Amino acid sequence: MHILIIGAAGMVGRKLTEKLVADGHLGGKEISRFTLADVVAPDAPKGFTGPVDALTIDLSAPEASQTLIANRPDVIFHLAAIVSGEAEADFDKGYRINFDGTRYLFDTIRLENAKSGYKPRVVFTSSIAVFGAPFPDKIGDEFFETPLTSYGTQKAIGELLLADYSRRGFFDGIGIRLPTICIRPGKPNKAASGFFSNILREPLVGQEAVLPVSPDVRHWFASPRSAVGFLVHAGTLDLDKVGPRRTLNMPGLSATVGEEIEALRQVAGDKAVKLIRHEKDETIDRIVAGWARDFDTSRALSLGFKAETSFDQIIRAHVEDELGGKIGG
Amino acid sequence: MHILIIGAAGMVGRKLTEKLVADGHLGGKEISRFTLADVVAPDAPKGFTGPVDALTIDLSAPEASQTLIANRPDVIFHLAAIVSGEAEADFDKGYRINFDGTRYLFDTIRLENAKSGYKPRVVFTSSIAVFGAPFPDKIGDEFFETPLTSYGTQKAIGELLLADYSRRGFFDGIGIRLPTICIRPGKPNKAASGFFSNILREPLVGQEAVLPVSPDVRHWFASPRSAVGFLVHAGTLDLDKVGPRRTLNMPGLSATVGEEIEALRQVAGDKAVKLIRHEKDETIDRIVAGWARDFDTSRALSLGFKAETSFDQIIRAHVEDELGGKIGG
Repeated sequence: MHILIIGAAGMVGRKLTEKLVADGHLGGKEISRFTLADVVAPDAPKGFTGPVDALTIDLSAPEASQTLIANRPDVIFHLAAIVSGEAEADFDKGYRINFDGTRYLFDTIRLENAKSGYKPRVVFTSSIAVFGAPFPDKIGDEFFETPLTSYGTQKAIGELLLADYSRRGFFDGIGIRLPTICIRPGKPNKAASGFFSNILREPLVGQEAVLPVSPDVRHWFASPRSAVGFLVHAGTLDLDKVGPRRTLNMPGLSATVGEEIEALRQVAGDKAVKLIRHEKDETIDRIVAGWARDFDTSRALSLGFKAETSFDQIIRAHVEDELGGKIGG
Repeated sequence: MHILIIGAAGMVGRKLTEKLVADGHLGGKEISRFTLADVVAPDAPKGFTGPVDALTIDLSAPEASQTLIANRPDVIFHLAAIVSGEAEADFDKGYRINFDGTRYLFDTIRLENAKSGYKPRVVFTSSIAVFGAPFPDKIGDEFFETPLTSYGTQKAIGELLLADYSRRGFFDGIGIRLPTICIRPGKPNKAASGFFSNILREPLVGQEAVLPVSPDVRHWFASPRSAVGFLVHAGTLDLDKVGPRRTLNMPGLSATVGEEIEALRQVAGDKAVKLIRHEKDETIDRIVAGWARDFDTSRALSLGFKAETSFDQIIRAHVEDELGGKIGG
């Protein structure tokens, strides 16, 4: 089995590659080859002995997709995207990568399908940014898409194309809408959602972190480990069970910032909690107020997707996967 | 005020042009100029003394949109589309016109907006084909879009772009999802929905018509007169009241074929009803079974959109507008 990961150099892409290498197989079939692509050259995965093509590509160039599918990958994970803030700041770039890039990929597969019957599995990562306020406290599987950002618009369009191209039989597509990933490893960043991770990750290693919103802010979370689990499951799931509605809200944990902090206290004690500095930021507060808080993910759960059910589990996953089991600075 | 109608040679486009010429104004402003465009040259409107540009265009050519907005129309009605059956039969053509054509138009306006601040009203005609079965008996304003055709997919994408481009301030966009138009004037056609009109229009002039489905089939209707009314209202409505959710289900009449036939009996008697030949067509029956039957259009009604509330009114509108008030063969 040949696997292509587009966006392989990103956090989720790297973790997905590691997981697949560690497993050695996907859906019971041995993994014999990887194609890893990103705007910067992805690292070759450690511990994999088969052929690996590490490609530096610009997905918005029409010919890039031909290079990507030249060796006919069986499963394609499409994780590449200009993120929300940048897609809002640079209209052209967001549409070029998230919209045209995705369409070029889908169309290149379509034309190859017409020529040779090539029909890979395509796993498309979408986002809860396809929903826009106002929404119900708990968003169900049939709530409509009203993105309030260009990024959310581009993802929603990707979902529509994925469904139509799958219905037409050009490929076997499935889309997954990821919750906010927490705890994101690495350094604090300036993404509006960054603090959800910062206030746990930094205190766990004895560093200060800033909390810019009220502790009663509620949001929707899954760990990086769950995100990888969603992707692997989407790569093997029987799509006959999914039917024509091809993109699913992934399960997650609805929790308040206060609940996050209490979980930190349980795992790492008062000393860690004291490292969180409360410093209200009106801009971030306003942005976060427009985000979804909770989902009813009955469809995804019934199809076997799984996520954490407490912040305790999310923190422990981080301690195991990123800190070698050790807490403290 | 300068008005551009794209798709001006079609049935709705011609009726819209006639109505605007007869009114002489839109939203209280005098109409001084028309640009009428279609794949075949639109007729110059009778009774209008101002300048008229009648253009034969291919909307899928990137430069076509520049020609369309060269004289900076204040209100743009975008009615042009490859219809459902053809977009399903010819994948490339459907995406080229309905998807690329619409995007070229929106992008041409965006670039002109960036250059000069040009910001027209854009009225986009969408379709209830953005919804796909299964759906509730009555589809509400927040039901999600799951098109089961390429045409529905293309319209849903157009709606998403319309909302994002409007939110960004590139133009003032509003989308309207038309019910099935009934009674369509003209000859019987082979569209799967054609019989809804045929079984009224033909008997009203003493001709036979074939009914290919059971009389208990329920569907969603508005007259051509109402469709024109929706467009005119969308062309002048205060969009601040609409907010970021820019496409609306238009009001209509939910009725069964049996109710259609009873209304025909009221207006034209048993003699007309006897001209309907019941001849079940399994293919059409199956297609129609997947169509929406009823809508809760609270938002559109609260914004002032109006439609017929009985089939009697729909038939009388046809008799007045198409038959000069006369019934019979």
